[in-house]
Amino acid sequence: MLDTVSNQNSVEGLMLGIGRRARAAARPLAIASAEAKNTALLAMADALVAAEADILAANALDLKHAAEAGLAASFVDRLTLDSTRVAAIAQSMREIAELADPVGTIITEWDRPNGLHIERVRTPLGVIGVIYESRPNVTADAGALCLKAGNAVILRGGSDSAHSSRAIHACLVKGLVAADLPADAIQLVPTTDRAAVGALLSGLEGSIDVIVPRGGKSLVARVQQEARVPVFAHLEGLCHVYVDSSADLDMARKIIVNAKMRRTGICGSAETLLVDSAAIATHLQPLIEALTEAGCEIRASATVLRIIPGLKPATEEDWRTEYLDAVISVAVVDGIGGAIDHIARYSSNHTEAVVAEDPDVVERFFNEIDSAILLHNASTQFADGGEFGMGAEIGIATGKMHARGPVGVEQLTSFKYRVRGNGQVRP
Amino acid sequence: MLDTVSNQNSVEGLMLGIGRRARAAARPLAIASAEAKNTALLAMADALVAAEADILAANALDLKHAAEAGLAASFVDRLTLDSTRVAAIAQSMREIAELADPVGTIITEWDRPNGLHIERVRTPLGVIGVIYESRPNVTADAGALCLKAGNAVILRGGSDSAHSSRAIHACLVKGLVAADLPADAIQLVPTTDRAAVGALLSGLEGSIDVIVPRGGKSLVARVQQEARVPVFAHLEGLCHVYVDSSADLDMARKIIVNAKMRRTGICGSAETLLVDSAAIATHLQPLIEALTEAGCEIRASATVLRIIPGLKPATEEDWRTEYLDAVISVAVVDGIGGAIDHIARYSSNHTEAVVAEDPDVVERFFNEIDSAILLHNASTQFADGGEFGMGAEIGIATGKMHARGPVGVEQLTSFKYRVRGNGQVRP
Repeated sequence: MLDTVSNQNSVEGLMLGIGRRARAAARPLAIASAEAKNTALLAMADALVAAEADILAANALDLKHAAEAGLAASFVDRLTLDSTRVAAIAQSMREIAELADPVGTIITEWDRPNGLHIERVRTPLGVIGVIYESRPNVTADAGALCLKAGNAVILRGGSDSAHSSRAIHACLVKGLVAADLPADAIQLVPTTDRAAVGALLSGLEGSIDVIVPRGGKSLVARVQQEARVPVFAHLEGLCHVYVDSSADLDMARKIIVNAKMRRTGICGSAETLLVDSAAIATHLQPLIEALTEAGCEIRASATVLRIIPGLKPATEEDWRTEYLDAVISVAVVDGIGGAIDHIARYSSNHTEAVVAEDPDVVERFFNEIDSAILLHNASTQFADGGEFGMGAEIGIATGKMHARGPVGVEQLTSFKYRVRGNGQVRP
Repeated sequence: MLDTVSNQNSVEGLMLGIGRRARAAARPLAIASAEAKNTALLAMADALVAAEADILAANALDLKHAAEAGLAASFVDRLTLDSTRVAAIAQSMREIAELADPVGTIITEWDRPNGLHIERVRTPLGVIGVIYESRPNVTADAGALCLKAGNAVILRGGSDSAHSSRAIHACLVKGLVAADLPADAIQLVPTTDRAAVGALLSGLEGSIDVIVPRGGKSLVARVQQEARVPVFAHLEGLCHVYVDSSADLDMARKIIVNAKMRRTGICGSAETLLVDSAAIATHLQPLIEALTEAGCEIRASATVLRIIPGLKPATEEDWRTEYLDAVISVAVVDGIGGAIDHIARYSSNHTEAVVAEDPDVVERFFNEIDSAILLHNASTQFADGGEFGMGAEIGIATGKMHARGPVGVEQLTSFKYRVRGNGQVRP
């Protein structure tokens, strides 16, 4: 017991020190030039390529532990690095260097009748805490995105990828140093003690402005529950596709198969298909056949079962389940109104798509559904910062505050007002 | 003890019911037309004018209690309504009706190479909780601003203005009903039990999206400390004016006197004057004389005292004090760099002004200081949503997330993405 307490105290002290150093680094970083930040990013890419052997050796240690622990094959796959993956991580640093620098850009500006000129200008958020699991590339991507937006970052990776993350982090620090930026701008928590996560979630006595969790539902749920600072995250992506009776059948078929089956494990994959009751005779059977042919298991509502017997029935739980697998729940709804009601009840407010030719249906879908991303006649799998043209993303947020949808460099900024006068005083 | 528990339980139950009704009202409100919302606002104005006698009678009850409790004259003044003040409240409803409706406006839009058209569109935030003290007009202003932005609102006013707030709230509900909008869109907490505040701060099981506290530092501090949902607020406005050696002396004099003395009790009033050490011979004495002549007490740093003996010396505490009174602390700093360091150390990140003709000094001030509002050659007392041209404001925020600076109707919104395609699937 005494050991635990003293250990917790020492982790807390360690983390507070990391927080103070991050806050101190944030000030010079906020005014660093775009050139300095890009120099650092390109130097990071070079360092990653040069350190390939070290990174793969570190990764081999992590893989050895994973094999000894008998971790799942999909987990080991996410953890595994090879020459190609290291090159891809380096390339991603170069792509982030090419993004426009958001800091200092004028979001909007206007003049007042008294001659004051007001500008709203992007500024960095400050210090960002990133808590992630086993993907070693998150170390590089999250570090680089935060740097691009002028933020200091504290990275807390999973213990299973600790050696890989450390090797990658060393390359990021080399990049910072090469550009004369503070090495503390990107810190990796050097302990795998779980108390470090609790310390981050407390905000480290005001040293953290926002937390970004990257990982499974249980990690995100813990972060959302316990964090005393704002969180950019989505708990799950329970995405719906509604096919209206006005939908082009061929288009609907392509969209639902892509939305569900292109990659089943990502947050933008569809989990529920809603079919307009006026389209039962025309669309329902072909859509279910297309999904079945693509290898998807169907969980059917009572109405669907009456029309197509023999399918597996959906339970109430199915409408609330993010399968992240080749499974989809299918319901018949009473037109766009029924679709809106179903989505209001079950959606995780991440992404929903409507397939329809009737413009009134599309406008109701767009106006009355309050999810971060709504798509018309396009696949839900476009829910991605890269596909939105934002460059890399650090995640997708479903909260309504500050960042919503893909979180790219622009969403990692705040703003301030600059007011230019020539002696105005207030009457 | 049992009584307290049961009372707490009943307040909690009452508040959860209010939260559920607010959440239910938020959905139709989010898609209410600008016309419906404006109809409601104009009907509120009419109802307020028509109910003047009732409102003044209710206010007389509050004033009687205030007199019996021996409350301070300034407090009683804030609480007091008369015919003119009721007319002003009604007029403010009409002015909010005239503001542009933020909901549905396209913030930005772009096309992707694959033909997808992406729009970022303003949406309401949802449900806003407003916790305020004795000013009865906040009931009307906060209710109207939240409505304009399509949000449901739960108002929790101070017990000292309970009768006045209830009479004003009745007029707001009449306006909602006249426009066929849900009466639950603007709810007033019907109990003065302090447990109601705790319940609001808990977020009412997900029924509240953001809390706005309006009142003194102790209220705001409690809200910031205890709230489990985002808060739009500023704890204090410890605003600085830096006078550079390149400043026009006459302009500097007018600005510092206005920034400090126009109204000393508002958050945008200046609390500290920083004078460039290169301007000691030219600017220091005239600025201090102008402030003294205007009736301001000076708290002088050691350097200032050496030059102008006899002034009251400033203590370390003075640099951290928001006087909200005719008192100012004055320090000599080593040019713009010294000003930036002093402000980084002591500022509450609300509003700071620089008086200077040297453009390099202005750019460093604008770039390196991270406060919500920075002004060049203008008074800090312009820190106000109305002066910014935003129409009414519900407050000023110093946090970095979502809303920063004046919080008007636009800042009371979130956004979503609408993506229009013609059959795109993701490769």
